[in-house]
Amino acid sequence: MSFDRLIKRIIETKNPTVAGLDPSFSYVPEFIREKYAGIADPLEAASKAVLEFNCGLIDALCDIVPAVKPQAAYYEAYGWYGMKTFAETVSYAQKKGMYVIADGKRNDIGSTMEAYATAYLGETELYGKKVAPFGADALTVNGYLGTDGIKPLLTPCKEFDKGIFVLVKTSNPSSGELQDRKLYNKKGFPSGNVYEVMGEMCENWGKEVGESEYGYTSVGAVVGATYPEQLAELRQKLPHTFFLVPGYGAQGGGGKGVSGAFDGQGLGAIVNASRSIICAYKKEGCDEQDFAGAARREALRMKEDICSYINLK
Amino acid sequence: MSFDRLIKRIIETKNPTVAGLDPSFSYVPEFIREKYAGIADPLEAASKAVLEFNCGLIDALCDIVPAVKPQAAYYEAYGWYGMKTFAETVSYAQKKGMYVIADGKRNDIGSTMEAYATAYLGETELYGKKVAPFGADALTVNGYLGTDGIKPLLTPCKEFDKGIFVLVKTSNPSSGELQDRKLYNKKGFPSGNVYEVMGEMCENWGKEVGESEYGYTSVGAVVGATYPEQLAELRQKLPHTFFLVPGYGAQGGGGKGVSGAFDGQGLGAIVNASRSIICAYKKEGCDEQDFAGAARREALRMKEDICSYINLK
Repeated sequence: MSFDRLIKRIIETKNPTVAGLDPSFSYVPEFIREKYAGIADPLEAASKAVLEFNCGLIDALCDIVPAVKPQAAYYEAYGWYGMKTFAETVSYAQKKGMYVIADGKRNDIGSTMEAYATAYLGETELYGKKVAPFGADALTVNGYLGTDGIKPLLTPCKEFDKGIFVLVKTSNPSSGELQDRKLYNKKGFPSGNVYEVMGEMCENWGKEVGESEYGYTSVGAVVGATYPEQLAELRQKLPHTFFLVPGYGAQGGGGKGVSGAFDGQGLGAIVNASRSIICAYKKEGCDEQDFAGAARREALRMKEDICSYINLK
Repeated sequence: MSFDRLIKRIIETKNPTVAGLDPSFSYVPEFIREKYAGIADPLEAASKAVLEFNCGLIDALCDIVPAVKPQAAYYEAYGWYGMKTFAETVSYAQKKGMYVIADGKRNDIGSTMEAYATAYLGETELYGKKVAPFGADALTVNGYLGTDGIKPLLTPCKEFDKGIFVLVKTSNPSSGELQDRKLYNKKGFPSGNVYEVMGEMCENWGKEVGESEYGYTSVGAVVGATYPEQLAELRQKLPHTFFLVPGYGAQGGGGKGVSGAFDGQGLGAIVNASRSIICAYKKEGCDEQDFAGAARREALRMKEDICSYINLK
């Protein structure tokens, strides 16, 4: 009923970071791609290459990084074969002890949102058998549709001890076009920005599932590393909301900038990096055969960078 | 570079409606479900049953309804097998001449959004071959992340003559929690609601791809049938934005209520109904073997209802 499972992994590994598995095909080392060149369907071939790439990364990271975050778009881009690789990646990472955040930014209402909840976090009974279609541990969602779009997720959160991260303040340059717009209430008084209202809704939705050991509910928020001031401000305002912080690394946020996302115990947030970890072999200029080693080195560097600014014990 | 392909189909069939293919398993007739009961993996079995259900519906609707809208959630709920059925449904509907709106409400930024654009609307080159992963004609998207989340979609819209529908004012009861909130500008003056700002952004994004024969760009908007006043108001304010109108039928909107979504020529919008069409056999109480016939009868009834309030020739 909370992010306690994730928080325990963070404490075990002393590492509040998550590796984003965003396997654009150009990121997959040439030697892996070549292995599958003989398969007739290019979507199938690419999906198999991606799975091998992911498994190599997971093997290299699973004892030092608590979680992975596969981004659905990079699997859907390989069609249904890609979604098979997505499912296999979730399952492989979990077998290696990692917490898996499915980054799908899903959103809809009522029974449609229930279907997404089932797909990513829950179970469905078909032909008398219970199955978990993708079986991730947490899902990113978009709250633009309001409570009707979030409520259906709270059931699997409670029943199967899963979590959600609602987009609050995203890391991209144009996030302010809507999210920073100022609102006023019915009496004509200012009542915060769009992203603040979304943050307050997260606190309220979270209350329904209840907080737990570490004080955070199972309703988290996505808050970009590229806006350090808002990050620190939201940490104060949303004391029960666990943060997923994208934008470290390739997008420009650094260890100091993300430090405001954490509470006094160095908890309350997990920082994501995707390209900077999975493409570390390119930046390092090492042999591509050592792609997993390079990912591990970068993950350790990132851990040190962030931990030097926070109080995680 | 527009919704002209869809509009031409609407004029041909004299029917501004789209059938939502939201195959919750309980909607699939028993006699179809039973055929696949022998398959060991329940996700595979259910996905095959859903495909047969969908193909039957498409056969019954393709000469009278211009488009179908498969809702991704109901396919993801069957895991990757479900996404295979999604791909096969898109392809089957297109072979039968229908325009396919993938209802995924996808959203992300930069290269991730490009991956979604490729997955649903574009092509990717892998191992020297060009492939369209899901190859739909249009995609629903969520604009909460601003321009960074929409721009990557405009490329396939231009290159492959595809379209997008951005969530503006959704049909659900709680849509107002965020979407109806009032904004003020930097000088402290009122500047509309959140959904109006989103609507204006649609007009602006659409300008980049340009309008065409019927005056609509390839950037459309989702505006719920359950809010008739806002529908008519937005039709006036967003003259180049084609509307996808959910909420007819099961959600409670009727023909009169949606009439405000249309322009003087009876164009400018397409109204969706899902459950009321695909589950018509249950409501009608006919033999479930006649599920497709019942869907056709309800689709014709809906067409008559809506066309009695608009000027489509």
